[in-house]
Amino acid sequence: MGTVVALTGQFGGAKLAYGLQQLRGKDLALIVNTGDDYDHLGLAFSPDLDTTLYALGGVASAAAGWEPEGETRALQGMLKAIGGPEQPLLGDKSLAAPLLRTQGLAAGRRLTEITLDFCRHAGIAARVLPMSDDPVRTHVLTDDGAIPFPEYFGQLACAPRARGLEYAGADQARIPDEVLDVLHAADLEAVVICPANPYHTIRPILDISGMRELLRKRGAPVVAVTPIVGGKALKGSAGKMMRDLGKEPSPRAVVIEYLRLIDGFVLDREDTHLVESVRSLGVQALAAQTVMRSLDDRVALARTVLDFARTVREHRAMEVE
Amino acid sequence: MGTVVALTGQFGGAKLAYGLQQLRGKDLALIVNTGDDYDHLGLAFSPDLDTTLYALGGVASAAAGWEPEGETRALQGMLKAIGGPEQPLLGDKSLAAPLLRTQGLAAGRRLTEITLDFCRHAGIAARVLPMSDDPVRTHVLTDDGAIPFPEYFGQLACAPRARGLEYAGADQARIPDEVLDVLHAADLEAVVICPANPYHTIRPILDISGMRELLRKRGAPVVAVTPIVGGKALKGSAGKMMRDLGKEPSPRAVVIEYLRLIDGFVLDREDTHLVESVRSLGVQALAAQTVMRSLDDRVALARTVLDFARTVREHRAMEVE
Repeated sequence: MGTVVALTGQFGGAKLAYGLQQLRGKDLALIVNTGDDYDHLGLAFSPDLDTTLYALGGVASAAAGWEPEGETRALQGMLKAIGGPEQPLLGDKSLAAPLLRTQGLAAGRRLTEITLDFCRHAGIAARVLPMSDDPVRTHVLTDDGAIPFPEYFGQLACAPRARGLEYAGADQARIPDEVLDVLHAADLEAVVICPANPYHTIRPILDISGMRELLRKRGAPVVAVTPIVGGKALKGSAGKMMRDLGKEPSPRAVVIEYLRLIDGFVLDREDTHLVESVRSLGVQALAAQTVMRSLDDRVALARTVLDFARTVREHRAMEVE
Repeated sequence: MGTVVALTGQFGGAKLAYGLQQLRGKDLALIVNTGDDYDHLGLAFSPDLDTTLYALGGVASAAAGWEPEGETRALQGMLKAIGGPEQPLLGDKSLAAPLLRTQGLAAGRRLTEITLDFCRHAGIAARVLPMSDDPVRTHVLTDDGAIPFPEYFGQLACAPRARGLEYAGADQARIPDEVLDVLHAADLEAVVICPANPYHTIRPILDISGMRELLRKRGAPVVAVTPIVGGKALKGSAGKMMRDLGKEPSPRAVVIEYLRLIDGFVLDREDTHLVESVRSLGVQALAAQTVMRSLDDRVALARTVLDFARTVREHRAMEVE
């Protein structure tokens, strides 16, 4: 068994990442979206990195996966009492990582080093790697101008119509050495694109200059897992955003987004009737249970995805012959 | 009734400040020690300012007066899990003021403006004024060198023997306009030195260049309340520090510390036998109940102190005649 690399973000992505970690431990490396990072009260928030850390550390809330279990809001209450901002809402536990991160960055450390330190202390086996140490900021283009994604998603509750997205800084952002290392690994076995909004979670990673080429460089199969089941995104904003952008919120639209990058696509059992349609796009397809309700579901899906990646590789090998 | 100014810090000082506020509301101005301020995790902590805010806002813990009632430590737990420092211990609610303060300072606002904003939002009638907007840092001089007071008090639990104290920056620190305004008030009625460690809480205030002269400028009586009852400090480090410094931990030693500044001194009923000894130093003395166990005790002592200040003024007027 070799190295597995997964592109991830959001709670859906983190759940599959958890399953992959249970199977592969330190042989798993995650490339995590930082396009939703933002500054608030002078602190550096990295929502996707922290969601990933909580999930992999086994401390994520079952109900609200983006924050730790048993989160409290004592600080927010006092903040309000002395005139602080009411949005975005701060959680007590959720403030620890931004606090340490801000201090580390101020001391000149790289985001990657800081994040790997968190993993080491929290006993997380997988390597959790930011997609870049340079700032990338996803903006939603609306009729009222470009809105930073955290504001669009949080304060505006995705209400403005999305006309498009931009990933400010992605073309100048450099790929960290740690990401280069895992993607150059001699034993690279598979690249997995976790189930997450393709437009604001996965696309910023892919748009880092040189990332797409690098993902294909070692020839390992690239397989994606659908974030859309039965015509709707399970969580978050993917479905609404796809409709705004004039795209049918369907697994097929996700495949089109990843065309020329992925070799295989896992859609949900509920969408089995779409398997042929995906194959007609030149992508191998598998229907499986992609909805992860339990921890066992996460591990089961991770196993399915890795098995599928092996099949994809063998199939490709046959085609070459 | 005119303006009352009180020099304060620590929970003991904050309790009397609370009583004074109940009697005088917006006609009370507090000059608060900032010599114990420190930076931690990149945030600006001002323990005496915050203790004062909690007490005056009516949210201080009855048991641990330096922090808000019902304080929790959820953030600290997560901080530890990802490799953050274990000391000093962070409270969730207690982090709100340092967070907003740090942001305000980074935006170029003065500590005084930020603190007055906190008061306005928290519905605090009195003006809570830092002794300076410039940094002053109290160090305890020990055989191992100069130790910042928060470290001496917190991590070291006052164990090293204190050979002396220094107030780094006090001679360059400027008195803020807001403090100048209240000390120049035409109706200045009294200056109260609240019960607090004279060496590390009151002395830094007095050592700000020009402060002693200013406190006497309008001729209002200056009265101090003892932090020492029956040969021991009620709370904190005053007694131990006084012994270290070779001074008997007694109300008389406190009077000597304030000589040529105060007109009157309130000692505890338990130390009534020391009244004549204090008077022999040329300071008017009054024995009263200085231990404040209830909110009513705070108001009662505040009333006693203000009445005493009036007596002192009248007595002085008679002497002049």
